[in-house]
Formats: sequence, C-alpha cells, structure tokens
Amino acid sequence: MSERGLLIVFSGPSGVGKGTVRQEIFSTPDHQFEYSVSMTTRPQRLGEIDGVDYFFRTREEFEELIKQGQMLEYAEYVGNYYGTPLTYVNETLDKGIDVFLEIEVQGALQVKQKVPDGVFIFLTPPDLAELKDRLIGRGTDSQEVIAQRIERAKEEIALMREYDYAVVNDEVKLAAERVKHIIETEHFRVERVIGRYHKMINEELPLPFR
Amino acid sequence: MSERGLLIVFSGPSGVGKGTVRQEIFSTPDHQFEYSVSMTTRPQRLGEIDGVDYFFRTREEFEELIKQGQMLEYAEYVGNYYGTPLTYVNETLDKGIDVFLEIEVQGALQVKQKVPDGVFIFLTPPDLAELKDRLIGRGTDSQEVIAQRIERAKEEIALMREYDYAVVNDEVKLAAERVKHIIETEHFRVERVIGRYHKMINEELPLPFR
Repeated sequence: MSERGLLIVFSGPSGVGKGTVRQEIFSTPDHQFEYSVSMTTRPQRLGEIDGVDYFFRTREEFEELIKQGQMLEYAEYVGNYYGTPLTYVNETLDKGIDVFLEIEVQGALQVKQKVPDGVFIFLTPPDLAELKDRLIGRGTDSQEVIAQRIERAKEEIALMREYDYAVVNDEVKLAAERVKHIIETEHFRVERVIGRYHKMINEELPLPFR
Repeated sequence: MSERGLLIVFSGPSGVGKGTVRQEIFSTPDHQFEYSVSMTTRPQRLGEIDGVDYFFRTREEFEELIKQGQMLEYAEYVGNYYGTPLTYVNETLDKGIDVFLEIEVQGALQVKQKVPDGVFIFLTPPDLAELKDRLIGRGTDSQEVIAQRIERAKEEIALMREYDYAVVNDEVKLAAERVKHIIETEHFRVERVIGRYHKMINEELPLPFR
C-alpha cells in the first residue's frame, strides 16, 4: 500500500480537555496512528521527557526552524513558542502511517491552510458552564483570567466551522472512542480509496469458471 | 432535538452480501436507526411476512404509487418491481430518526439525485474472484449468467465514485461494524451539528462565578 497516511488534527478551546482525551486515545493499543510530539521553548518540568512530552529547544533553535520553514504550525503563548516540526510529520505520512496532532485552534487553522485534506476534529465542551467549572477546578487562574478564557473559548468555538468533525467531551472514554471511529471511517471515504478499485474494474476474469 | 434524521443508503453490486451485512447490523440493539422495508410486486414466499420482509403489493398498486410520486426510488428486475415508499422515509426522518435503506445501485443513484445530503455507503467485494465464488456458491445461476453478473458488478463498482464511503465485505461482522461506525461519525460532521453551537457562542455567563 503506497497511499499516504492521514494527517489528523485534534484541537479545541483551551480547557476543554484535549490532552486528557488524547492520552485516553493513546492508552490502548487499538490505534494505528502515531502521535506527533510538539516542540516548545518553555522550560522542561520535573518528570517530563525530551522527545516524549515535548521536544525542548531554546528560543534560538526554535526561531531558526521557523526561519527555515521547518514548522508545520507554531504560536507563542505567554512568552514561549509551541509548534509542530514538519519533518517527522512528512516522513511518517510518506510511510503510509497516519499522524495525530493535538494542537491549539490557531495552530490548527495554520495546518488547514497547508494541508486542506487533513482530518480536522474539534473537541467541544458540553456547554460553557461546564468549561467554566473545569477552569475553576484547575485552581490556577483568577476570575478575570477565567472570564477571558471563556470569551476566547466562544471565539474558538465559532471557528468550528473550519473543521470536519465536532466531538463533545462529555465523558473522556466516549470522546476518545468517537475520535477513533472518525479516524477509522475517514479511511473508508471514497475519494481516499477509489484508486484501489480501478484495477478491479478493469480486471479480466478467466472463463470457464472452475 | 429537532434535527432531521440522516438518510443512510447502503448499496453495492449484486452478490456482494448486502442483505447479510444488513441483517448483522440489525441483529444487535446498539443501533439508533430504522430499517426502511422495501416494496415489491414479486410473490410472497413461504415464511415471509408482509411489512417485515417486504411490503407485498400488486403491479397495479405499485404503478399507482409511482404515478403519484410516492416512490423514493424503484426499479424493475426480472418482471417485478422493487422500490422504497417515500412516506415512511419522510415521516421517520422528520421525527429526527435515521433511516437505513438497503437497495440496488441503480436505486441508490436515484436517491442521490433527490437527497444529495444522504450518507451513501457502497459495499464492495474484497476482489472479483471472491464475488465469482459467491455467485457460484449460490448454485442458482448458469456460467453465462454469472459472467453477466460479474460484468455488471464491474460497471457498478465504477459507480462507487457517486458514494461517500466504500466498505469491504471481507468479513460480515467487521463490515457491519464499519457501517455502524460510519453512521455514528456522520453525526459528528460539523455541517450537521454547527447549528447546535450557535447558542453556545452567543451565551452570556453570569459573573461573579460561584
């Protein structure tokens, strides 16, 4: 099979639980896609492994990669860069293996420009009250910051129209199953598989039959 | 939820095993769509129940429904009409329930004209040799008829491009699972669900938070 892998872009507003659902998806061996590790300039935290949690790079290294066009997408948050290195993604897709990105909404829109035939999946909160509860539950943000995050979530939910699928994160296991089924069924889309059938259509079967 | 149900059109070449896969799909209670019983003018066979296996009607009754525009699709095979009555389909979709049709390729193309936003699923044989074996295994057709059926299957496989999904019938249980996953994930497509989120985007959350 020399078909290229699918680029799967998993995104959603801040606080919706992208990371938790992604971990659930990769916690079982019944998936046939690979996770693309992001690159960041933020300091490595205790317990984090370079190349597993993130590729940890200096600002200079990261900016050099941007300059060379080696980032599929990137953004700056609170003074640190986060992004997706292009080489790993391309090499994996070329092997016919699907690549799974978990990235922020702004990054997903950059990818959409470059790879319009990717599979764009948007994780949504069941409702905004639930998202607010989750942000409060983290205990890391002030009321003002939470209010800003909710406003930004609303703007990001409005960008859902740029995606192919919307999955509700009402329950982590269910949301993970839905995402896996989406990836499975995208492989059955006629525009992706029709090439395989041209041979069948033109095949000559010998007569007489056995 | 006042969204309309999805019209699911399950089709594929003669002999591919549409009926067997459809029975497998409906053999378990984990589906939320209803099967649309076809109408036919062929004689009722022993054990068949009117309204379950088919709606059995006379030629005159069937032709009257055609005249009244009451058939979503129909075709004539070996002197008998087969088709899908429109009323049941529309009433069920209006209730927000998905409707599942298992029909021939020609009928599916008629439905595609009338309901372009249906979900069109094409069941394919793993290869033509397998289809040939299956037709021989039935023991009902002569070599000439089988050769004709294979030629027709090739023409029908070429029509796959009109469909949304192609599912291989390599194993009945697997094929049935794939079809169920397709129907599930079609409900996550952004163009089908975005209406639900307009409210969320415009929602005002009270401050201060509890």
